[in-house]
This record gives sequence, structure tokens and C-alpha cells, in this order.
Amino acid sequence: MSIIAKTWNLPINLLKSIADMRYSHLFGKTVRQPKRDMQNSSHKLLYQAGFVRESTAGRYYFLPLGIRVRNKIIKVIREEMDATGAQEVLTPVMHPVELWQETNRDNEAGFELTKVVDRRGAEFALGGTAEEMMVELCRKFELSYKDLPFNIYQFSQKFRDELRARGGLLRVREFTMKDAYSFHTNEKDFEKEYEKMAETYKRIFDRLGLKTEKVLADNGYIGGDYCHEFVVESDIGESKYLVSEDGTYIAHEEVAKFKREEVNTDEEEQPFEIIQQPEWVTTMEDNFKHYKLPAQRFLKNVVYKNRVSQEIVIAVIRGDLEVNKTKLEHVLNAVGQLEEASEKDLEKIGTKPGYVHSWGHESVTYVGDISLTTVKNFIGGQKEKTTDSKNVNYGRDFECEILADIALAKEGYLTENGQKLTEKKGIEVGNIFQLGLHYSSKMANAVFTDTNGEKKPYYMGCYGIGIGRTLATIVEVYHDNKGIIWPEIVAPYKVHLISLNTENDEVRLRAEKIYKQFLEANIEVLYDDRDQVSAGEKFSDADLIGCPYRVVVSEKTGDQVEIKIRNGENAELINTDILIERLR
Amino acid sequence: MSIIAKTWNLPINLLKSIADMRYSHLFGKTVRQPKRDMQNSSHKLLYQAGFVRESTAGRYYFLPLGIRVRNKIIKVIREEMDATGAQEVLTPVMHPVELWQETNRDNEAGFELTKVVDRRGAEFALGGTAEEMMVELCRKFELSYKDLPFNIYQFSQKFRDELRARGGLLRVREFTMKDAYSFHTNEKDFEKEYEKMAETYKRIFDRLGLKTEKVLADNGYIGGDYCHEFVVESDIGESKYLVSEDGTYIAHEEVAKFKREEVNTDEEEQPFEIIQQPEWVTTMEDNFKHYKLPAQRFLKNVVYKNRVSQEIVIAVIRGDLEVNKTKLEHVLNAVGQLEEASEKDLEKIGTKPGYVHSWGHESVTYVGDISLTTVKNFIGGQKEKTTDSKNVNYGRDFECEILADIALAKEGYLTENGQKLTEKKGIEVGNIFQLGLHYSSKMANAVFTDTNGEKKPYYMGCYGIGIGRTLATIVEVYHDNKGIIWPEIVAPYKVHLISLNTENDEVRLRAEKIYKQFLEANIEVLYDDRDQVSAGEKFSDADLIGCPYRVVVSEKTGDQVEIKIRNGENAELINTDILIERLR
Repeated sequence: MSIIAKTWNLPINLLKSIADMRYSHLFGKTVRQPKRDMQNSSHKLLYQAGFVRESTAGRYYFLPLGIRVRNKIIKVIREEMDATGAQEVLTPVMHPVELWQETNRDNEAGFELTKVVDRRGAEFALGGTAEEMMVELCRKFELSYKDLPFNIYQFSQKFRDELRARGGLLRVREFTMKDAYSFHTNEKDFEKEYEKMAETYKRIFDRLGLKTEKVLADNGYIGGDYCHEFVVESDIGESKYLVSEDGTYIAHEEVAKFKREEVNTDEEEQPFEIIQQPEWVTTMEDNFKHYKLPAQRFLKNVVYKNRVSQEIVIAVIRGDLEVNKTKLEHVLNAVGQLEEASEKDLEKIGTKPGYVHSWGHESVTYVGDISLTTVKNFIGGQKEKTTDSKNVNYGRDFECEILADIALAKEGYLTENGQKLTEKKGIEVGNIFQLGLHYSSKMANAVFTDTNGEKKPYYMGCYGIGIGRTLATIVEVYHDNKGIIWPEIVAPYKVHLISLNTENDEVRLRAEKIYKQFLEANIEVLYDDRDQVSAGEKFSDADLIGCPYRVVVSEKTGDQVEIKIRNGENAELINTDILIERLR
Repeated sequence: MSIIAKTWNLPINLLKSIADMRYSHLFGKTVRQPKRDMQNSSHKLLYQAGFVRESTAGRYYFLPLGIRVRNKIIKVIREEMDATGAQEVLTPVMHPVELWQETNRDNEAGFELTKVVDRRGAEFALGGTAEEMMVELCRKFELSYKDLPFNIYQFSQKFRDELRARGGLLRVREFTMKDAYSFHTNEKDFEKEYEKMAETYKRIFDRLGLKTEKVLADNGYIGGDYCHEFVVESDIGESKYLVSEDGTYIAHEEVAKFKREEVNTDEEEQPFEIIQQPEWVTTMEDNFKHYKLPAQRFLKNVVYKNRVSQEIVIAVIRGDLEVNKTKLEHVLNAVGQLEEASEKDLEKIGTKPGYVHSWGHESVTYVGDISLTTVKNFIGGQKEKTTDSKNVNYGRDFECEILADIALAKEGYLTENGQKLTEKKGIEVGNIFQLGLHYSSKMANAVFTDTNGEKKPYYMGCYGIGIGRTLATIVEVYHDNKGIIWPEIVAPYKVHLISLNTENDEVRLRAEKIYKQFLEANIEVLYDDRDQVSAGEKFSDADLIGCPYRVVVSEKTGDQVEIKIRNGENAELINTDILIERLR
């Protein structure tokens, strides 16, 4: 084996992989009280336990304990992504703005892009997502069908100029994201990858201790036709979603579909009438009382303004339902562009709040919800000062330019199959997007050569996980009133070793020896070696920080040590060698 | 062991840590020719072998092969930093500009800060270095002498708006940097850490295969009193440094000191004279001819303008020496602010090129080099159209406001101890800085409580390594005319497995089996499984990519495989099991 023996003769002095960490040396100590503006548990506990600190609003420092958890989450994600055949890459953070112009995302409302100009006047966007950059990277190669499919991903700092940053790591302006982008010859091939990514995401979050639901969601500014969020159920979550009784339909409220049951379509259409109305009838409630009819028998109008085109849109819907702005925006191809109309906007079309007509206003786009066809003889639709309309029938008395699904699903509504929907709240920790040809058709030369030698745009998908938000969500799920309870796989240290009675030399030396034994056994250990700190304080800190195993060395433990698991009830004495053998 | 058995019941399904990688699936294939503008070897080879691609000038994509090397470099640095007790943290990339205002670095010339304004009008700097951010982080804690010393470091994206970006990864505008910052109660404690970091840097670069020299260097815009660069000798390096014969003195040319030997100080001072000069004497060369005297007997003036204060500075120096602008800037406390004066600037002080006086110009600061005292009876110093001065003596006939060391050291000069200096060129891969109280004295509340309960500013140091530049430097050192020769510790894959004669089913299946054996043995392997690609092409690609071990399976290898090390001469046949055992 001469040839192998001849190999590299570099001084690769291997290190013990476990670094020394004494609490007395730890940068970022615990704090007893959270700050007053901290609302949710992860925000409070990650601050109190010394995992993070806020820089400016929505921008966080990770302290040594926090970075260890972050790096472990990254490790799990990297392992699982690599196992699927996805390949890690890295794009610059500063994206040439010309790329975003190719896809019209540089000024599209709804995406909070941060722009930068360099000393030469070149314009850049700080990456919030990297579809354009990845396509640009692919353009640097002559791709053929043989090169496809592939999935390239990165861990990189992302920037979102959020209006409100709050909730600690749950909604921030700068964060590390794993974003992946897949490229395919056709839709069918993409669908396999989409499914594979969904399974991979489930496994990643399972390994991290997070039970996720795959929720059909809105694709928003990312584009494409469909996407799913991975959501961890939580009362403090900002994602509202609806789940069918049998659990087969799970959709974000922004996109959830539901059945519009027939209300009274067996009734005969009565003649349209303009009627006098008592003056006291002004609100919807007044109407119900006055006509002794339920909300669903009334027409409701909601007015929006497109902030880009300034166009006024009137959404007409059955009185018991609410308009879903996201659905409406998709129907109008105006993602992120609608806002509620002001009184001034209403004035411009010659009306005021409470007196909007379901038809007849000029220079307005009318969009009706499909629920309009489930009722005969509506009340309303053309209210004047002292009159209202009665026996209004869609198709006979008025029609909207567009009739579509624009209503918000709610708790208790039914799916198309008649399954009752339940409303839940959760935290979105990841998402997967079908992009289709959205980017490859807009960007020049985003093509591969197919088997016939022809250039065709590739079919794309993208897949994201926010690292900091995942970390905070783990804390939301795993904590009690004493502190965090880290799942072992992401715990900053496996063992929290505490020495008590340190004024007793024998005990102190014994603790030091056990500490070294842990290090030599390659067990990650945080060693609270502080003098003149009470047992109570050390225990409180251990509970707050939340390492899985608390090991105590004291005058009382004798030749043994006391072991307690963070989420267990009792402590017990155990021989150190046995403990090390078990924890190794 | 009830309590241990009761522990976490999460589905931590462990993965094989080695991900599948077939060359046919690899994103970013090899390219035969470099681009025309690529000058140095690392730029060419990292492009050709498919490790990186340029986005805009000085901003790079890392491809899958490149990211693997990058991540391995990061791993080595992290291990070694952790082993010293340093603690990893992470700061946001967007630094509030107010912090940089506290230290006056927001508009200090010489540092190419990129500024960003968010939607709320808040101003940020994209981090180029993080001294202010780390002090700001420390201010969030009540530090006492018990908490010190500590060293906190991060791997994060850095931004330098360099005027010229070139040379591939050697000089870029965006890059990942390991930057560390240490905090101490006093100078002595800092000095121990500085020494420890120097040793750690040497070990890091040793492990990465880079022989470094610790070169005294200029601290520039970072501040502090002294610093060292870690430099890898290379003809393409931009760091010029001088080494004494005995190797004990190594200093960057910007700061290198040298001995000014006495020229003729034993001569008597002659009376000062204004003399007529023949018209043909205009250049320095003409002067040497005319007076038959060596350069060192003449006075030389070099004029600068401070671009911030607009002040004119005249540096006066012995004729055989050159002015060192960096030294001059430090003497004037004007780091990064001097530029060569234009003819227009000279006009303003009433002169023109070739006619500057060593004294007497008004509204000008004169700085003399200490070499002015080594010569008696200088020629020059007050040239007019047809006259010059003779027998000029420093101290008698003129004096500068400042007399200091402002001369550039060069090959052949002597150290103060009489050691001859040799000039070398190299690539700076890391640096360590004494910061002292530079930041803690400028920033409010950058203090710790000492043993007497008093608040005192902490003493600081900082320590950087550029990851991409280190990667490129490894390529500069380890390559031949066929491609890269990666040291094993950072190689993208340990083994480059090649199957030949893939049209032969038996051979193909054998190769597949061996590939799986490598994966199962946890040996990182890149498997060139391509059909219809010649042996020559596969060998060229393997040489270009540069994995340490090339393993070939072909019709000729029979039950064995052919192994060749990338930097070895010969291939030999070996039994697969034995090979795997050796490489494991």
C-alpha cells in the first residue's frame, strides 16, 4: 500500500469535538424577568435564558446558547435535504435589481424589498427570497434534459422589511432561511419532487419535535399556482387554517374553499320592488329585525381600492358571509394590491358607507361571490336614503362582471363533501411552492434543451424553512412555567452539570473530575461551576435554560451524582460511570 | 435506570451522514476553458472545475463543490476557535448606523461602507466588520470583572464596497468572514489572548495546508495600536512584506521600520548657498549627473492633499527613499485621507511639479522623514526656475513641523539590528488586531465593573479570517497544470470514483456496488457514472476537480480497483475491501 502511505502529510491534529463550557465563562447569562413588551413564551424565555438579544426591532443577536441550537437545527435540515439528493449552494445576499425587474417583483406591492445602491451607482435588492438569483445561476450553464431535475438549496441571511416586527423570533426583519429551488423538464417530474419535499419537511420537523400540518395556502408574491405551509398548531400563531372533520382537507383561511349551501332556491322569484324603509333601519342588525329574516337573505357590498391602479372594486356577497381579500386579489390578478376603500373613495363614486349599491356605480369593477346564486329574492342591493330594494335576484336584476369564490371560510362551514370545518391557529415554520413556469417564462433564457434539441423553459418549485422561527416554535411547544424544555436533538447542551457546596474542596474537585469525564466521553455539557451561588439559583437557571439532563454533584450525592430529566418529576442518584455510559 | 429510560421519545431517525452524489446529477459541471479576464490560478480553476460562479463583479455564487469546501474550512475554524474557549454568536447583517456614528466610522474615508435605508427611514450599514455591534451587544449586559475575559465570534456575510474587485475569490465585495472580538479587564490579559489567537490561527492554517507568516501590519480603519496579518507567500499576493535575514522581524511594507544609516554626518556643515543651475537640469536624474552625487544627497518633496480637510501636506525625505503614505497618514492622524496632490493643488500653494520647496510654502504642513538628519549639506529644497539651493542642513536651514518615520522599507535595507531585509509577496488570509480602548473609549457605557465597584472601559482585540479568500489561497498553493489538488481535510469529496466501459453491464454493476460500499463505509465519494463519456474526459475532470483519491473501475481492473492519488505519479491495483479499510 505504498501509494496510500504516501498521502497527505499535513499536520491534521484532531481536536476533541467537545468544547469546554463553564457557566461562569458563558457569554450571556440568565435574567429573572422578561421585558414588559414581551408577549409570547418563546420571546420571554429565549431572552431570560440568554439565547438571543434584540438589536433593532426585528433584528436579533444570537448568543452562544442560541447559536448552538440554531446550528443544530441547520444540521438536521442539511442532513435531510442532502439525503433527498438536493445540493447546497450559496448566492450573494445582494441581488442585482435588474433580475427582479425581469419578473416585475422590484416594485410589486406586498413584498417588502430593501434596496441598496453601491458606490458605482449599481442597484441591488437585499435578498428576501432567491428565485431570480437561482434562475440567473442556472443561466450560466447550458442545461440539457440530462442535467434535470435538480434541487439546489442554501442557508443564507434573508431580509423582509416587515411593517410590524414582533413576537421575538417569530416575526423578524432579518433571519436565516433554508431556501431550496428545484428545476424540472415537466410538471409530472416536479410533482414527484414536491411530494418528496413535503415528506422531507415532515421528517425534518418530526426530528425537531414539531408536529406539523401541511396546509394548503396562498402563494402570494412568490407566484405559481399552489403551495402548502407547514404549520405547528399554536394559540399564538398568525396562520389561521381550517381542517375538515376527517382531516383530509386542511387549508389556510386565505384560500380555504367551502360549500355554499342552497338557502331558498326552491322559492319562486318575486317581482323586484323599491320599498320605503323606516328611518331607524340603518345597520345590518336593524335590517334583520325589521325584515325578520336571517343575514343570508341580504346582499352585502364591500368596497376596495387597488392601490396600484386606483381602480375601485365592489365585492358583492351573501349577507352572512365575509369577503376574503386574498381570494378577491387572485380573481383580479392584483396580489397584494387591494386596500379597504376610504370614505373619500366612496365619495368619488357618488356614495357613502352603508349606501353602496350592488350594481350601477360607474367606473367600478363588480365581483360577486358564488353564494349570490344560492338565494332567491334578496333584500338590499340598492339602498337610498329612505328606500331599499326587495326581491332582488342575481342574473335577473343584476349581474357582476365576475362571479367567483371570494368568501372567507369559517368554523362550522362545510367542505364540498359536506365535512364540517374546524378553525385552528398555528405558526408557519416552512412552506413549499409550485412555481411552474412563473419565473422561467418571465426571465430570458431560463431554458433547457429537450430530447429534440429544442429550448424549453424549465418547470420550478421552491421550498423554505425559517431557522429562527423554527427555533422559537420549538420553545412555544416545549416549555413550562420554569423555562424551556429542549428536545435533546437541538438542546444547546445535553447535560447541565451543577456543583453545589463548592466551598467544600472535596466536592469541588469531584465535580471538576466528573466534568472532565463528560468532556472525555464527548457528551456536551454546560458546567455551572459558580461559587457563592445558591442551589436554588443554580436549579432555576438549569430549568430556565432547559438542557435535557440535570446532573448535580454535592455533599449529599457522595460517590454518586443526582440525575433529573428536565421534563421529569423526580431526581435519583446514579453511579457516574453508568450515567456516562447511558448518555454517551 | 427508570429515569433515563423515560427520556425523549421523539422520532430521531438517524441518517447516514454521507449523501449520494453522482457526477451526472452534480449541479455545476466542469468547463474546459477559463474566461479571458481570469488571471490567477484559483480564479481559473475554481471556475473551470465548477466550484464558483460570479454574480456581479466581486459577488460570488458557491456551487455544490465549492460549498462543501467552504463548509469544511468553517468546520476547522469553528473547532479551533471553540477549543480556545471562544464562543460563537451571530449579529444581524444590518447594523444601525447610529453605532458607527459613535465611533466616527460612518463617514471615515478608507472604509467602504454600504448604507441602507428601511421603509421607516431608519439608516443601516451593511456590516463590513462588527466592532460596534459587538460592543452594543455587550452593553446589553451588566458586565463585571468576573464575566471577563471572553472572546465572541461569528461566521457571517460581510460587505466591502471595494473599488476594484478582481482575482476571483481573492478580492471580493461580499464574503463570509469569521470575525472574533475579545474583551478584557486590562492590557496584560488581552496580550495572553492575542498570543493565543496567533497560535490558533497558525494551527487553523496549518490544518488547512497553508504555511503562514505572522506579519506586523497596518491597523488602518480598524483602529488600535498594532496588528498582524497572516500571510501565505505567493507571487500573486497583494500584501508586500519584508523579512529580516534571521526571520525575527516580519512586517508589511506599510509599517516596516528600517535603519537610516548615517550618510556623511562626519562632514562639516557648509554655508547655505543659492546657486544657478543649467537649464537642462530638470529631473532627479539630471541632478545626479550634474552634481555627480548619489540620490541620498538630495532633498525630495512629495505633496499630498487631505481629502477630508483639504489641507496640503509636504513630505520631505532623503532623495534615495520613498514616502510611505500609510506611515504618513498615521503620523497625521488621517488614516485613509491622503491622496497625491494635483497640479491644481500645487498652483494653490504657488508652485508646480518639480519646483516644490522643502520649506516656506504657506498654509501647508511639513512632515520630514528621520532620514533628513543622516545627511549634511543636502542639494535642493528650494528650487526656482533657474536656481537651486546647496549645503542645506536640517535644523540649521529648515525644520519640518513633524519629523518622523515616514519612509518605505525596501529589499536590501537593514533592520535596526543590522539584519538585511528581503521583500516578499503574499496573500493575507487572516488578521489579528489589538484594539485597546479604541472602541470602548468612544462608545458610551462600554464598561465593566472592576473589583472596586468602579466602571471601567474594557480592553479589546479582534481577529478575522476570510473564508473565501482562504479557499482560493489553498487552490493557489495546491494545484498543477491539470487542476486543483485539494488537501484531504477540505476536499469536496475524499474519493473520485470513475466507472469506465459502462456499456458493459458487468462493469457498470460492479462500479455501482463499489459506490454503495464507499457510501456505507461513510467515505465521501463523487461518482462519475456518466455513459458515453471517454476515459480521457473523466480523468481530466477528476484532475481538474482535484479530490485526493481517484478510484477507477473498468474492464481491466477485474475484481480490484485502480487507485491513484491526485498528487502522485502512478496508479496501482488494489482490493476494494482493503482500500475501503484504509480510507475509512
